This record gives sequence, structure tokens and C-alpha cells, in this order.
Amino acid sequence: MTPRYLEDFAVGQTYGSGCIRIDEHRIKSFAAEFDPQPFHLNEDAARDTIFGGLAASGWHTAALTMRLLVESELKPAGGIVGAGFDEFRWPLPVRPGDELRVESEVIDVRPSKSRPAQGLIKVRTTTLNQDDKAVQVLVVTLVVQRRRTQHDVGRDVSGGARIAIGPMAGST
Amino acid sequence: MTPRYLEDFAVGQTYGSGCIRIDEHRIKSFAAEFDPQPFHLNEDAARDTIFGGLAASGWHTAALTMRLLVESELKPAGGIVGAGFDEFRWPLPVRPGDELRVESEVIDVRPSKSRPAQGLIKVRTTTLNQDDKAVQVLVVTLVVQRRRTQHDVGRDVSGGARIAIGPMAGST
Repeated sequence: MTPRYLEDFAVGQTYGSGCIRIDEHRIKSFAAEFDPQPFHLNEDAARDTIFGGLAASGWHTAALTMRLLVESELKPAGGIVGAGFDEFRWPLPVRPGDELRVESEVIDVRPSKSRPAQGLIKVRTTTLNQDDKAVQVLVVTLVVQRRRTQHDVGRDVSGGARIAIGPMAGST
Repeated sequence: MTPRYLEDFAVGQTYGSGCIRIDEHRIKSFAAEFDPQPFHLNEDAARDTIFGGLAASGWHTAALTMRLLVESELKPAGGIVGAGFDEFRWPLPVRPGDELRVESEVIDVRPSKSRPAQGLIKVRTTTLNQDDKAVQVLVVTLVVQRRRTQHDVGRDVSGGARIAIGPMAGST
């Protein structure tokens, strides 16, 4: 699939994804490395916690969502590079055996004021389980390359991007 | 260390953490599983991207931050359970060999209106590299248990928490 440039995005577009199953073993091993709390590590210990049973770390859900997004049809030119979040929450816990997929909707598209070679799109990305219930809602602004115009040929339009200090450089 | 209840937290308190070094191998293996994009997988491919070189996935930084938080002195009773984010950004990329630590500051403390056994604290958690530069800023609201009072003894004050649907039940 060819990448999409800023000019290819429009408000209202939706993009689906494949599906990933999360199993108990990986919930526990992810938690052991990154989020070693009883409700992510042990079914018995999890029962009397706020989760009422073993649940994936929210950061595991977020990481799997990223995998689904990268492999989804969204495919922004330059990659998926976040420039900030408007919303980020986990409405329901993710349980062993859950099958996750992502639905993304483009809710804003605009050129960058400070970097002519770039634009910004805002995307609402909802991670759903096998019952179509939302387990994560993320509203993220992504940096997207603009299509090179005839005017740009011969100029290094990527040069502006290369001096950016990172994904969250506060582009406007 | 004994856990801290809502009554133990106050605006202005700060909590440090240990330190974690992130190496090139784990940057790439995390990315291969969760964020398979060239700037997280391959030094040569990363050079001409917005990152200008190999950088950790932001989700890897977020997950390591969680590890540092869980092992930090913050220790809220009931565990670190997020109820929403006010701010979440990555001001600078994380590079192979970086050593990360976390500084947390309590910026709000309040009882829950809907769940008498719980309260909410808002914490600004800044992830810093070995040069004391912020690589992640997270402002998160955490659910914290209240200390059982004499009045509560004999009542199951945790019962209210157990029926919560998850970390993001929209406690107020």
C-alpha cells in the first residue's frame, strides 16, 4: 500500500485494522517487565482489586493498539509520529483471550504553520474487543508529510523535518 | 514501604525513582513487537526520518516510565490505577543507552464524590534522561484508596471498588 500524504486525508475518513489476540502468558510477562502490579500478574491476587480479575496493563493495550495502527490502512507518509494527545483513556479492562482491533476516524486535517513540508491530522482511534466494546480511546495528532509539489522539486523539503527534535516538537 | 492512602498525599509532594537504562537491542525488539516502524528498528533507515537516528517507541518510554513509577516511592494504596490523562507528550526522543528516571509531583488531591472508599490524586510525572532533559511528560489522575476510619470498620468499604468496571470508570 502506498503511503498517504496530507492531501490524501479528509475529515470523516475511517480506517480499520487487523486483529490481535492477547493471551494470559503475555499479559503477565509484559506486566513483569513494565507494570509489575498484582492485578496484571496473578489471577488470585487480582480478584480482590479494582479490576476484579486479571487484566492487561493499559500500556500493553496501548502498545498493541500501536501495532494495529502501524499495520492498518491509515499509512501516513513518514510513519505514525504522534504530536500530542487530546484524549487517552481505558474505559474497560482487557482480559486474557480478548481479541483487539482498531477503528480510526480522521477528525481534523491541517497544514503545519511552521513547517511547509508537513501537516497535521487528528485521529480518533478506538480499540475494540471481540464484543465491540471500547477498551481504549485515543485522540491523537499525527505529523504527516505533504506531497511534494512541482515547486518543491530540487529543494530538500525533508530538511525541515530532519531538524525537528522529536515527535512532540509542538508543531503548529 | 507501606502504601499511601489518600490522606497521606498533599499537593506539592515530590517522589523520585530509580533508574533504567534502555539499550539498542530492546528498543528494536520492543518495536518489532509493538511499533514496527523504520525509525525504531534500524539505525540506517532512521537517519533520514523525522527522528534523525534510532529512537525508542514512545510506547516503550511510556512502559518504562510505568515500571519506574511502580517501583518509586509514590506507592498509592490499591496500586497505580489511572483514571485519565490531562497531558501526555514526548518532548525529546529516547536514544540507545539513555538512562531514564522519573520525578513525580502531586498537583491535586481530592475525595471521590461517587465512591466514599476512594479518592483521586493528580500527578505530574516527568521522565528524564541522563542529561536531566524531559523525554516524557504525563499528567495523570490516579485512583487512591482512602484510609478506613473507625466508622468504616465492619463495613466492606472495598465493595464499592470491586464493582467498578475498570481503571477508567469515570470516577468523580
